Amino acid sequence: MAKPVNFDKIAEKVRNWGRWGDEDQRGALNHIGPEILKKAAAEVQTGKLFSLGLNFDKDGPQLGAGRFNPKLYPTDLFTPLNPNVPGVVYSDDVIHMPLQAATQWDALAHVHYDGVLYNNCKACDTLSVKGASRLGVEHLASPGIMSRGVLLDIARLKKVERLDSTYAITPDDLNAAVEAQGVTLMAGDIVLIRTGHIQTFTIDKDRVAFGGTQPGVNHHCAEWCYDHSLAAFCADNLAVEVFSVEAIMGTDIPLAFHMLALRDMGMPLGEMFNLDALAADCAADGRYSFMLAAPPLAFTNAVGSPVNPLALK
Amino acid sequence: MAKPVNFDKIAEKVRNWGRWGDEDQRGALNHIGPEILKKAAAEVQTGKLFSLGLNFDKDGPQLGAGRFNPKLYPTDLFTPLNPNVPGVVYSDDVIHMPLQAATQWDALAHVHYDGVLYNNCKACDTLSVKGASRLGVEHLASPGIMSRGVLLDIARLKKVERLDSTYAITPDDLNAAVEAQGVTLMAGDIVLIRTGHIQTFTIDKDRVAFGGTQPGVNHHCAEWCYDHSLAAFCADNLAVEVFSVEAIMGTDIPLAFHMLALRDMGMPLGEMFNLDALAADCAADGRYSFMLAAPPLAFTNAVGSPVNPLALK
Amino acid sequence: MAKPVNFDKIAEKVRNWGRWGDEDQRGALNHIGPEILKKAAAEVQTGKLFSLGLNFDKDGPQLGAGRFNPKLYPTDLFTPLNPNVPGVVYSDDVIHMPLQAATQWDALAHVHYDGVLYNNCKACDTLSVKGASRLGVEHLASPGIMSRGVLLDIARLKKVERLDSTYAITPDDLNAAVEAQGVTLMAGDIVLIRTGHIQTFTIDKDRVAFGGTQPGVNHHCAEWCYDHSLAAFCADNLAVEVFSVEAIMGTDIPLAFHMLALRDMGMPLGEMFNLDALAADCAADGRYSFMLAAPPLAFTNAVGSPVNPLALK
Amino acid sequence: MAKPVNFDKIAEKVRNWGRWGDEDQRGALNHIGPEILKKAAAEVQTGKLFSLGLNFDKDGPQLGAGRFNPKLYPTDLFTPLNPNVPGVVYSDDVIHMPLQAATQWDALAHVHYDGVLYNNCKACDTLSVKGASRLGVEHLASPGIMSRGVLLDIARLKKVERLDSTYAITPDDLNAAVEAQGVTLMAGDIVLIRTGHIQTFTIDKDRVAFGGTQPGVNHHCAEWCYDHSLAAFCADNLAVEVFSVEAIMGTDIPLAFHMLALRDMGMPLGEMFNLDALAADCAADGRYSFMLAAPPLAFTNAVGSPVNPLALK
Repeated sequence: MAKPVNFDKIAEKVRNWGRWGDEDQRGALNHIGPEILKKAAAEVQTGKLFSLGLNFDKDGPQLGAGRFNPKLYPTDLFTPLNPNVPGVVYSDDVIHMPLQAATQWDALAHVHYDGVLYNNCKACDTLSVKGASRLGVEHLASPGIMSRGVLLDIARLKKVERLDSTYAITPDDLNAAVEAQGVTLMAGDIVLIRTGHIQTFTIDKDRVAFGGTQPGVNHHCAEWCYDHSLAAFCADNLAVEVFSVEAIMGTDIPLAFHMLALRDMGMPLGEMFNLDALAADCAADGRYSFMLAAPPLAFTNAVGSPVNPLALK
Repeated sequence: MAKPVNFDKIAEKVRNWGRWGDEDQRGALNHIGPEILKKAAAEVQTGKLFSLGLNFDKDGPQLGAGRFNPKLYPTDLFTPLNPNVPGVVYSDDVIHMPLQAATQWDALAHVHYDGVLYNNCKACDTLSVKGASRLGVEHLASPGIMSRGVLLDIARLKKVERLDSTYAITPDDLNAAVEAQGVTLMAGDIVLIRTGHIQTFTIDKDRVAFGGTQPGVNHHCAEWCYDHSLAAFCADNLAVEVFSVEAIMGTDIPLAFHMLALRDMGMPLGEMFNLDALAADCAADGRYSFMLAAPPLAFTNAVGSPVNPLALK
Repeated sequence: MAKPVNFDKIAEKVRNWGRWGDEDQRGALNHIGPEILKKAAAEVQTGKLFSLGLNFDKDGPQLGAGRFNPKLYPTDLFTPLNPNVPGVVYSDDVIHMPLQAATQWDALAHVHYDGVLYNNCKACDTLSVKGASRLGVEHLASPGIMSRGVLLDIARLKKVERLDSTYAITPDDLNAAVEAQGVTLMAGDIVLIRTGHIQTFTIDKDRVAFGGTQPGVNHHCAEWCYDHSLAAFCADNLAVEVFSVEAIMGTDIPLAFHMLALRDMGMPLGEMFNLDALAADCAADGRYSFMLAAPPLAFTNAVGSPVNPLALK
Repeated sequence: MAKPVNFDKIAEKVRNWGRWGDEDQRGALNHIGPEILKKAAAEVQTGKLFSLGLNFDKDGPQLGAGRFNPKLYPTDLFTPLNPNVPGVVYSDDVIHMPLQAATQWDALAHVHYDGVLYNNCKACDTLSVKGASRLGVEHLASPGIMSRGVLLDIARLKKVERLDSTYAITPDDLNAAVEAQGVTLMAGDIVLIRTGHIQTFTIDKDRVAFGGTQPGVNHHCAEWCYDHSLAAFCADNLAVEVFSVEAIMGTDIPLAFHMLALRDMGMPLGEMFNLDALAADCAADGRYSFMLAAPPLAFTNAVGSPVNPLALK
């Protein structure tokens, strides 16, 4: 086994440690400031709103061996607010779920290598059964993630409904999509990659296929994200990056893009974003940029958060 | 005991059942359309972003007898992605929490009276141990809640840090705030009411006080919301409306504003929105309107959802 | 569709409602008194102890669609008792599991038909999202279940390792086993039925087979239990009774033995008891009776409890 | 701060590491064999059965800051077994609870000091977010805990309803009780200590008092347990040993008895055993020995288990 091509070189280049201070816990979200937020608002032209989140329920994409689908427990039903007035009632409920169950953000503490997390946080001091004492998702939540969003529809670029399950998206593909779509990237943008793979779940209802071999970006795309000063990076597959069990087992750096993005660059990753309706609208009007509001919930010390991302065009 | 003044008359007036079709499950969110969303974007001038959500953790506002504070369980820590490469690892976690634990949306199924929910849904056919088969929060999530937001700072209007714990905000107060703040309401707006009460939790760390007697709107404000065609209504207290155990026990319609808003009008309520930083900025620049993105998560059949609302000015 | 043969007649005969008072919530456990408990102790001759419980963990017998396998969450690890003394520490953990996950007792509230539970408790007054206000497993737990146990090894009687998956054990089979084993039944006994079916899980690790078509008693055995004044009835399969999806779908009274046992007779059922080691010992020494201690946990208002049954010979 | 008197000397003496093999995970339970189990059965004379467990529910003894009381979630209510037959139904439920919520066993992995657990297991190799890979409670469960039980009623010895909350029971007290009660201890016995403290919960309903300063054994009693070759040791308070926050903060070895018992001796501890009814019966007939069946559930890798202990006289 060996590391992916140029892994160390890319890691060194994109490593943002210290860039926003030694205490920084928000990483590439620091690229988001008033200017890009005003640009994001300026993208709103038709007032069309799209929700990019999957539902959270027992029929979700998880197979259940490790991560499982959300379990909803009603705790009150027909409960009187005033015991003397039986007909005026409320209902309450409890959720039990992995924070990585469906559409979600990976916090910067989600992965690491060599015992160190983003911004040189030592793993042994950071991670415990109480969660991540640093780099938890609460730091991505305040203020929550909002910026200009840009969809790169790689499936459409390749003229397919879905990329082949083994296809590794390259920086050249990303550049080709940028050009084909006529979009200009800006620092602080959040890029959304459409592979079409989510249809294995949303259309085929095939959880095994959805969680198995899947197309996504290769690790060189991390450098591309860095060069464009992206704030975050999302996709419609489970892993953002190209994934197979064989690939995981055949390398010294499994999930290399994750490692470069989260641990070196400090760039949050959004997974399982359902981009099909948005992509159809973008193709129809030729506009692939929009306002994106995708606020994680501030789960203190957590390494992820479910999210219901909204795209407003 | 008797019903609140004019309760039936107000209920009849504001009852939106059938207004958006017999199958409608989104209620007053139907007021949100492309026009108000474009207006919302047009409110963005300074690019300042505010997160209005509380953190979700063991130190949250719940006392624990019924609703409790979120419990975070790491399920993976330092777990190798490839068992042969021990140093490249990931972490995962699970949350166990009431959907009403902290900053949250009430779904339309959250309360009802006389055996019928919003849009004439029979409670016995709708609510079960499997959750709400209709009017669940997933219907508020797709597309998620985004619109023009308007802060009405009633504490500031009354020249206090916090309203008195027994103060009932009236439609006149709301009108006075609108006028004092120089803001114009539009159909589809989401109004955020600042009472200052959240400081009993955020500053005083007094959960008992936060959950106890508290200022909020009276039930007449439901008619005011209806007249302004608001899409949703939020506040910085726990109950949105004025609340005390004594009041609950002394009326035939406890939480009358909830009943009118959720059950009759079909207007979602947002609770425990932390408005202090936003309010300070509004006071500083005199602008109390903004883009609000507050997407609930699509928990299927659930009666509420945690939320991290974002206000962008 | 029709009811199983003579269902109503058997139900009428075995119905113990009122037998131990209108307020009784322990049903056939009332057959256990000092005499049978002294007999149970007298069965102890070799001092050999057998645990009949399955492990409770992620590798349990549940498939996960409805009931799922237990989830264990450590909440403390290496936590100092005194913050000033880091090396003296404790660990704690939390379990999340169905009470029907593996080896377990069915409480009397677990099933019913025609809107009425054991001892004429109306279902609508008894069962809610708060659990079973009557006939919950806590009533079987105080005092917990202990008595003389008798193993009836039907697989051995039939000279097979495992009964055929569709085999329905009859009262004649039970009588034949009693005779072949040379055991005498007494009022208050707890009978354990060995089908061998548990080996589909313990040996084959085939959860689908374990939860699928399986051998067990037919509904006529309920009358046999009644005639012998048994206190409880257990088996090594999942359903105690013969089970297949086809059978469930082809009758007006699915799980007829459950209905007669729990709802009419008030006799608790023990499921997924692992009897193989005990059975081997009984075959070796020819003694099939023993002391059985199988205390359910007193989960208030619950309809079941996991159990680790002990047999002492 | 310093260690408790003679702590190291006692630890060295009672340390059973290697006594039952280097791979042993059952510790002092190895004292239980056929002989003591036959003796246990011989103690059964009146056939009186006592349940020593507290109920597991929301009204349990936990205050909720760390450990919390069990949460019961019905997941099925009135669910038809055959969808075509609506009136024949079942109910199911889920529990969410700390394994240390109420009456429970501490597994040998529950506490340790100096980085090593019972039988020289290295803590860093044993304990992780997946639980205890060695010395988990499943090893105490197979075969489960059953033996001769002996109640030592220290409150009665001292002629009080409850020992003073600061009282530290000494080996002399234990010997005095043995003598006053006229009981003879045997190797493999399980001793149950009655302090009366549980009444702060069962009678006073005062959770704060129950979890606060409380009477119990001092650390010298570990040596006494060792000398008597006890299999396990239980009490009716929360901590078995004398406990106060001040004591915890004032020593280098907080919970010294726990450390000696669990980590050095490998002797399981039973907590919150409700002994009042049993003690009254023992006082009435002068017999303080009985059969004790207290099987933990086999939660794989867990550090504790709830239990419903049964005493049969």
